[in-house]
This record gives sequence, C-alpha cells and structure tokens, in this order.
Amino acid sequence: MRKNYKMLLCYDGSRYYGWEHQPDTDTVQGRLEEAFYAVFGEISEINGAGRTDAGVHARGMTANVWLDTEYPTGRIRRLLNENLPDDIAVLEIKPASDKFHARYSAVGKTYCYTCHYGEYRAVFDRKYVYELDRTPDLDAMRKAAAILTGKHDFASFCRQAAGYPSTVRVVDVISVEQADGYITFTVHGTGFMRNMVRILVGTLLEVGFGKIPVSEVEKILYAKNREAAGYTVPAQGLCLMKVDY
Amino acid sequence: MRKNYKMLLCYDGSRYYGWEHQPDTDTVQGRLEEAFYAVFGEISEINGAGRTDAGVHARGMTANVWLDTEYPTGRIRRLLNENLPDDIAVLEIKPASDKFHARYSAVGKTYCYTCHYGEYRAVFDRKYVYELDRTPDLDAMRKAAAILTGKHDFASFCRQAAGYPSTVRVVDVISVEQADGYITFTVHGTGFMRNMVRILVGTLLEVGFGKIPVSEVEKILYAKNREAAGYTVPAQGLCLMKVDY
Repeated sequence: MRKNYKMLLCYDGSRYYGWEHQPDTDTVQGRLEEAFYAVFGEISEINGAGRTDAGVHARGMTANVWLDTEYPTGRIRRLLNENLPDDIAVLEIKPASDKFHARYSAVGKTYCYTCHYGEYRAVFDRKYVYELDRTPDLDAMRKAAAILTGKHDFASFCRQAAGYPSTVRVVDVISVEQADGYITFTVHGTGFMRNMVRILVGTLLEVGFGKIPVSEVEKILYAKNREAAGYTVPAQGLCLMKVDY
Repeated sequence: MRKNYKMLLCYDGSRYYGWEHQPDTDTVQGRLEEAFYAVFGEISEINGAGRTDAGVHARGMTANVWLDTEYPTGRIRRLLNENLPDDIAVLEIKPASDKFHARYSAVGKTYCYTCHYGEYRAVFDRKYVYELDRTPDLDAMRKAAAILTGKHDFASFCRQAAGYPSTVRVVDVISVEQADGYITFTVHGTGFMRNMVRILVGTLLEVGFGKIPVSEVEKILYAKNREAAGYTVPAQGLCLMKVDY
C-alpha cells in the first residue's frame, strides 16, 4: 500500500538547472527521481516545497513522495543517499499524513542570502557567497528592510508578476547581519514569487551602496513595476534554509 | 632595490597538482608566479614554507618573495588577488627582514585533517573532508595519538623515508576532536615529511576502527617501515593551517 513520506533535503545547487525536473537538463528533482527509480524500480513523483532556481542551494528543502515499500525509513534514506550524487543528500525521511503535501501544506519559508566583502575573496565557500567589491551601509539597508517587511504587494520584486493571481505576500522577517567579512540576509515569509528574495536583496544592496535612497524604498512597493526595484543578485548566494508546516 | 616580502596565502587545493611549480601542470606556485608576472612584468621566485601535495588545501601557507617595487603592500595584495584564480587568495603581504625565508625560517607547522561521518554525507564542504562510513573509537585514537606525540623516528610514517637525511621529528600536538558529525585531527610539529600527516591520521583511524590495537602503536614507531603504519588518508581532508616563525 502506498504511503506518504516527508523528506528533508540539502543540495549544492551550483551545477543544477534548479529544482524542477526538465527534460534533457540536470536538475535536483531529476536526480532524486533517478535515485528513487534505482532503489524502488518505479517512477516516483516527488513534490518539492518550492522550485529553487538554477544555482540556488538548499539546506532544508522539504519534499513528499508516495511509496509502496516495507523498508524502514533509515534504510530508504541510506539507499537513496547511495544513489544520489555527492552534492545532494537526503537528511531525513519519515512517514507523513495522507494530507501532507510539501508545497500546498507549507506555511512559511526561510531563505538566507550570503554576501562576502573584504580585501580578498572568500576561497573555500566561494560557490555559496556573492562577492561584493565594497562594504554596503548596514544601517541604511536595515532601514530599507524594515520598510519592506510586512504584508505588501511585491509586484515590483518579482520576475513575471503577471503570471501570479496575486502578488501580495507577507514577509515578516528581513534581517541583515554582519560578521567576519560576511553579510547575511535572512528572509522569512509565507511565500515567495519568482526571484523575489534575490530582487529584495539586490534592492537592499543598492540602498546600501547609496544608489537608492531609503526614502525611495516605499515608492518601489507602490510602483508595482519590476523596473522600480534593484537588480537581481546572483543565484549562488541564495540558500533555502527551512520550510514551515 | 629588491626587498623581501612575507605573504600569507590560502587556497583550495582541489584542482591543483600541489604547491610546487612543475612544467605543464597546474600548481599553486605556478599560478602565483603568473600573477606576479602579470603585476610586475618579471618572474619572481616564490619560496613557500612547504610543498603541499596535490589536492591539499591551505588556510595559512606562508611564502616569501623578493620584489623591486614602490607599490604599497595593500596595492600589491589587491593587484595579485585580481590576477589570481578564485581558489587562491593572498591574505596578507608585508615587508620582511632580509634573512626571512618562508621555508628555512619556519620553526613549526599546524595541519588540520577533517573527517565527516553520519547518516548522510557532508554536502557543502564535501571537497574539504574525508567521508567515513563508520564512527571510529575516539578514546582509542586519543590513546594512540598520545603514544605518537613527541620526538620520534617517524620513518614508518613517511613516503620514501630513504630520501631524508634524518626521519626524526618532533610532533608536540596530535589532538582528536569530535563535533556535529566531524572529526578533526590537529597536528603540530617542527617539520613534516612526505605524506606524514596523512599516514599519522590513517594509522589513528585504523586504531579507531579496531584494525590496529593501541598496544601495537609503539611497535609501528620501532619498525621504521612504512608497511607497519596505517594507510594514507586522501589529500582532500588535509589543510595547512599555520606556519610558525
């Protein structure tokens, strides 16, 4: 009998064309499907909590899958990990209720975006940070972050806003922390649109570099126009940390 | 007038055939020479504190170089970093006394060797750890480490011992720490022979896995024979942390 399982995954997105399975491209979901096929001999549909873009990483992607197996979960995890490349790992797999769906049951997500700046580049984590050539003004970024936090129409912070029935989202945390040459943006909200976190961070950085005055930030929200916001920072600094249920 | 400079370097050794310049291979020293040539238009001889093997990393390699330049050191560093690949960085460059030689003036070195074990592999730092498939016995490894610490003839812990005038070395620290699925071996000594740290760690792991009893460890020292010691652990877990002067 088929049973529903919830999985916690991590992956280095550097060499993948994102999460979502696509024919003839290397994706995280595609690699997971191959691993499930190798272990169970049948095609399993894997529902991810969201579709991370090409090059985006995850330390806490959640997915669910229906399986007809008597294997204990420890064995499933071990067999899957043996069949996955070394840049994807199943951290946890456990039985879930029939109603659980990784995407539709999700009530919140936390992303981190990591920048590095300094007299020299980050060497060992260079694939997981966005290297800055100057130090942004943290106070200005924090002021802007406070303005953007809340329930807003984030149409300006979205690629292809027209594709969404609504562009209103609740972002309850946008924090900016600095330590040892790293600047980490932590963003938590109920849901995010395409490129939304990367455009939020790009806009904050433009504020931090004095290109956008803090007084203009509210106007970007009102504009409901992608052109009004800052640039889209590169994928490699972004990591999906946690999905809430 | 030529002046002597001391440099602190870090590099991800994954894609290099070690530190030492060799024709037609990609080495860290070779890349540094290219960067110096790009900046100063002449070939500079770079003396490293030691020759890390292929795949070995460094967070604190020290080198010295004689330069005829009026550039302030901040500018030299910036120009070098602009001309280095993103897996090598000059952390620091400063004037040194004429007598300073990175290799001959060195009085000690610290290496770290990092293993990971657990129900799943390390994903983000997979190129900097050695993945174990079992948990070794830490107590046994610590007992063995205590036996190996000190001034000994380390001929058994050396590749091609015959190439050295003496195989006696002082290793004053061999610590074994465990945290969050990682086991870190920290080794400090006055000097190390070829593969010495990797054979020390391989021997400790064989003790930890019960393949070599703690009571046999002293006999390995007496044997003065590479065959008596444990295996050579892979390069990727090894990192040169610091050189003392």
